[in-house]
Amino acid sequence: MKPLLLFLFFMQAIALKAEDGYRLWLRYDKIDDAALLQQYRSQIGSVSFENTSPTLSIAKKELLTGLEGLLNKKITGGKSINNRIVVLLKPKESGGKTTADYNPLGKEGFSILTIDKTKNIIVITANTDIGCLYGVFHFLRLLQTHQSIQNLNITSVPKIQNRILNHWDNLNRHVERGYAGLSIFNWHELPGYIDQRYIDYARANASIGINGTVLTNVNANALVLTKDYLQKVKALADVFRPYGLKVYLTARFSAPIEMGGLKTADPLNDSVRLWWKAKADEIYALIPDFGGFLVKANSEGQPGPQNYGRTHADGANMLADAVVPHGGIVMWRAFVYSNETPEDRFKQAYNEFKPLDGKFRKNVLLQVKNGPIDFQPREPFSPLFGAMPQTPLMMEYQITQEYFGQGTHLVYEAPLFKEVLDADTYASGKGSTVAKVIDGSLQNYSITGMAGVANIGNERNWTNHPFGQANWYAFGRLAWNHDLSSAQIADEWIRQTFGNEAKLVSTIKNMMLASREAVVNYMTPLGLAHIMGTGHHYGPAPWVSNAGRADWNPVYYHRADSFGIGFNRTATGSNALAQYAPEVQKQWNDSNTCDEKFLLWFHHVSWQHKMNSGRNLWNELCAKYQQGVDTVRWMQQQWSSLKNFVDEERFKQVQMFLTVQEKDAEWWRDACLLYFGTFSKMPLPINYEKPGHTLDYYKSLKFPFAPGN
Amino acid sequence: MKPLLLFLFFMQAIALKAEDGYRLWLRYDKIDDAALLQQYRSQIGSVSFENTSPTLSIAKKELLTGLEGLLNKKITGGKSINNRIVVLLKPKESGGKTTADYNPLGKEGFSILTIDKTKNIIVITANTDIGCLYGVFHFLRLLQTHQSIQNLNITSVPKIQNRILNHWDNLNRHVERGYAGLSIFNWHELPGYIDQRYIDYARANASIGINGTVLTNVNANALVLTKDYLQKVKALADVFRPYGLKVYLTARFSAPIEMGGLKTADPLNDSVRLWWKAKADEIYALIPDFGGFLVKANSEGQPGPQNYGRTHADGANMLADAVVPHGGIVMWRAFVYSNETPEDRFKQAYNEFKPLDGKFRKNVLLQVKNGPIDFQPREPFSPLFGAMPQTPLMMEYQITQEYFGQGTHLVYEAPLFKEVLDADTYASGKGSTVAKVIDGSLQNYSITGMAGVANIGNERNWTNHPFGQANWYAFGRLAWNHDLSSAQIADEWIRQTFGNEAKLVSTIKNMMLASREAVVNYMTPLGLAHIMGTGHHYGPAPWVSNAGRADWNPVYYHRADSFGIGFNRTATGSNALAQYAPEVQKQWNDSNTCDEKFLLWFHHVSWQHKMNSGRNLWNELCAKYQQGVDTVRWMQQQWSSLKNFVDEERFKQVQMFLTVQEKDAEWWRDACLLYFGTFSKMPLPINYEKPGHTLDYYKSLKFPFAPGN
Repeated sequence: MKPLLLFLFFMQAIALKAEDGYRLWLRYDKIDDAALLQQYRSQIGSVSFENTSPTLSIAKKELLTGLEGLLNKKITGGKSINNRIVVLLKPKESGGKTTADYNPLGKEGFSILTIDKTKNIIVITANTDIGCLYGVFHFLRLLQTHQSIQNLNITSVPKIQNRILNHWDNLNRHVERGYAGLSIFNWHELPGYIDQRYIDYARANASIGINGTVLTNVNANALVLTKDYLQKVKALADVFRPYGLKVYLTARFSAPIEMGGLKTADPLNDSVRLWWKAKADEIYALIPDFGGFLVKANSEGQPGPQNYGRTHADGANMLADAVVPHGGIVMWRAFVYSNETPEDRFKQAYNEFKPLDGKFRKNVLLQVKNGPIDFQPREPFSPLFGAMPQTPLMMEYQITQEYFGQGTHLVYEAPLFKEVLDADTYASGKGSTVAKVIDGSLQNYSITGMAGVANIGNERNWTNHPFGQANWYAFGRLAWNHDLSSAQIADEWIRQTFGNEAKLVSTIKNMMLASREAVVNYMTPLGLAHIMGTGHHYGPAPWVSNAGRADWNPVYYHRADSFGIGFNRTATGSNALAQYAPEVQKQWNDSNTCDEKFLLWFHHVSWQHKMNSGRNLWNELCAKYQQGVDTVRWMQQQWSSLKNFVDEERFKQVQMFLTVQEKDAEWWRDACLLYFGTFSKMPLPINYEKPGHTLDYYKSLKFPFAPGN
Repeated sequence: MKPLLLFLFFMQAIALKAEDGYRLWLRYDKIDDAALLQQYRSQIGSVSFENTSPTLSIAKKELLTGLEGLLNKKITGGKSINNRIVVLLKPKESGGKTTADYNPLGKEGFSILTIDKTKNIIVITANTDIGCLYGVFHFLRLLQTHQSIQNLNITSVPKIQNRILNHWDNLNRHVERGYAGLSIFNWHELPGYIDQRYIDYARANASIGINGTVLTNVNANALVLTKDYLQKVKALADVFRPYGLKVYLTARFSAPIEMGGLKTADPLNDSVRLWWKAKADEIYALIPDFGGFLVKANSEGQPGPQNYGRTHADGANMLADAVVPHGGIVMWRAFVYSNETPEDRFKQAYNEFKPLDGKFRKNVLLQVKNGPIDFQPREPFSPLFGAMPQTPLMMEYQITQEYFGQGTHLVYEAPLFKEVLDADTYASGKGSTVAKVIDGSLQNYSITGMAGVANIGNERNWTNHPFGQANWYAFGRLAWNHDLSSAQIADEWIRQTFGNEAKLVSTIKNMMLASREAVVNYMTPLGLAHIMGTGHHYGPAPWVSNAGRADWNPVYYHRADSFGIGFNRTATGSNALAQYAPEVQKQWNDSNTCDEKFLLWFHHVSWQHKMNSGRNLWNELCAKYQQGVDTVRWMQQQWSSLKNFVDEERFKQVQMFLTVQEKDAEWWRDACLLYFGTFSKMPLPINYEKPGHTLDYYKSLKFPFAPGN
């Protein structure tokens, strides 16, 4: 065999071997389009750098590694600028070399410009080192996704300042609602041992613009604030810093008692305030760029200011005062609700926080889940968005698939993220989208943020399901630029993760774009919500009525009875709708005109209610559940058609997961319809698939070792 | 750049990239000795196969993959036998082609023979498919370790029949005493999802001859015996079968009550016996080659036959009767001791089981830990070995480093394994080694076994510390052939795992061979034992005296007082020594002649006792602790000298771990000497390093989230 053939043979063998998913979307395998490869090679011969810093060294290494992999040739690096070159520079060195306008780029933006078409000179430039690194990743993405690099004139600036992963990771490495193994943060071995994963994690985040990470669970343990643990946090912060990734911690509100030996954690008590100030000083002495605190207070058993008769603002402001001298922020979660309050859970966060608008310090963000309840497959947007013009609200999404089939279902979440971002709050008239609220443009927030609860663990491929990676990716990309469409992001991710063949891209993209609606349909169609198994949240259990709190029970949410199903939140019911702007109320107020996607969120509707399809509600419910199952089967077919386009390991992996997903979809359909049928007293429509088991069977299923609980 | 240069460049880049440890010792990178590569290439051109079966397909694939990787060229496969060929065959097809003697090969042995020197025809042959696969791995190992393949005349037959990993893995994936992440067995996702790890795990085991795996913790959960979980077990068994790996389960003795609704688990009760028989039938209907049960009964809170006034033999025999129609075995653990018994824990297993010799069914093995207590860094061999001529005893080693620095210390365990195997029980006169007991040759056992408690988890490199892989490897190799020396096994493993450069091999081998004695010295020198932290067993805590049971307390074991230290197990003490053969007693009976390695195991010795070195006991203890620290520092230096011989990722990884190990060794030394010094009232010898902290500081350390607990 000739060397070249040998080479190709081995490149293929190695590519196959390497597809364990660890590389995420940062695969720099040789461009497999020969003409394009030739074109890129003719445009890029070397790379020019000036200056050094930890971040710029990373940027250079990334650029060299990426280009050498993608172009399959040695790339030289130096300072001189010749033909066919990519130049990485900052303004100081740019004199005369670029026409870049640096003002709009701010601290994180970048420009990529072709400054000499004949000589093929491309400049990646930014005001800051991290801007340069973001530009490098963007440039490599152009090649990874087979885009033209002629006449480049790209400027990119993040629309949101704080783009943050929330890890619900406990110090024992158990991940609450985690379905991808243990926490990647091995606290026991820190600070002595720096796992390569920490570096690869920071790099992956930088590649999509994520610039913050909350290392610990919102159900917090004060131990992380002790001296020994702060050394461990510092070790991680030192690894993450050159990648532009700030660390944050969750603050357990009762820490002054548990750790400090104080008798109270009252936020207005001077000793308590001093304790937190000293603690903040201690942290910042170790980690000068520490991001700040995330707090879950007075929610689901967590301690908080209300234990002392104080408000959430009192609590948040105390912490904000402690970190503000160091430039830190406090992210205070709006996810609070009380079983004791005889009030629709939907309404409680708004009731609690709306009166506090304007009462928070300037370095406090209120972190609001996308919907009013809890990351269900579909929720209306939280009524808080738009309702607090004097308080920066940041978005909290859940990337981990707690209610989305957990570790085994293929669900692309960008359509959910986008649905919420695109929703119109009408806070300042038409066009007042949630996106404009959280990017600060609507209400002039001086500080903005978006958080995503991470789906990352120590499994080889990070997210267990290979498509879980797409949700991490989509979160980062949307936090950077919420104007991107779900399809654009999917397109990028597929090309980087699987390849650029047209059939491959279009097939996977169609699957991804259909997947979220599929889950809504086979789990909670027409505005149903929160009917999953208690505790572990795995599988259907709409019959549960004995959970520890009324508002943890599925029956609290669906309210099925002989008349119909759904939660009346109009004026004749809980009147939660009144928390929205009048224009929004109008959209959802009338069960005959309400978007059917949200129908049962707001209305208790008769089983006989006539739907847009002409079917009655019961038959529509049956049709939707079946449609969910059918979409999964269609996804199976689509995936099977890609056998020759995807490496064997990932092909089989996804194929097996889709089989699991099909069974689970059938399980949801059958269990829910059998149960709801006991109220509707109506049969399944003719020719429908019969349930695999009896209702009693589904009720009998137990999952004592379901993960993430 | 020329294609060939390009090729070399990329091969190097890829080799570096791939060193995340996932490939274990099965790295088939190109032979880097050009002359040898040329020689091998001239000897091997193609491969000939006949027949197919799942196992033979694996053997062929392995042979092709291995040769193509190692020789860096395409290898063709077919049925015709030409020049320069490796032939894989079984006796039926061997007519005239080989001179192999098939009788001695049995069911698992193999021969590798050069049958035609001029034509370079090499035959790998065996009676069985699995024998062929073992032969393939052996042949590839020859190339991986740069051995000659001229005039091959190799025959290899395992000395022990059942070579079994014990996973102390719970159904929620927590691994008791596991330091490498979660269990690789993802019960929640089985049987629908077959993780690639399962296949790679089976392959790795086959490569070193391990032929059985107990999937579940000895502290057992009956749930694994339910119908749903047995489907999951079956899925694993189906994956493992072609690799010659049988699955076993732990049987919770009270399962007939917990699952079967019976009122008793009395092994002589007919309903109980029928329940187990039916359960065995159910298992074998799913898994025809199911291996059998491993049982921990009446030990550390586990239920067992003594709850019903029955003996261990009664319990074991009931289960043996249930599995014997299907060819199954029962492995009954001898690790039993009772806090309530006012008897030296050392003696209890012997007292319990010796009277039962001859009372077990023929398909029962008694599984005996290597030492009388619990996997301490050094223990005398268990007095049961040699003492039960009518009962097959199998060895239980602990591969996972519960008492060996857990996930972060470099400790090569083969010297411990060998020390026990080589120990002479004198059961039938001189030369009655433990090895001859457990391989059955001494007492004519019809069934033999060796178990190792696995150190495997879902971390990328399987074992957390890269050198943990060596212990998995060494266990398998010794179970196959206990005549191999620690050095031989280390040599093989290093060459396969890191490379064949002489300096690399010799340096790492010296480190490995010194490492176990280093840990003994910095943790428990001179025969100390069981002085680690309570519960998690991490770090030193010789002062603990308040554990839940007397025999869990370090003070129970070291018995330090103003006179001296050590446990008097002579006739004037607990007289545990009487459990050994007279010749063994004689070796250890006198504190003046007792091997100092075991001194404090058997004697309470004055601080002033004169040691072989001329020092008194206190100064000797100080010297040993310091020696342990010094050896770690020497290992650090040795490793540093390999910077240019090891890929960057693993080099840094081991370097960081060695730094942790140095600190931990100092911690052990300082904490233990400060504490024991309160009894000896003697100072540290002059010029010794001063402790880093006070004794109170060491006592104050808490590790609430230490892994494996």
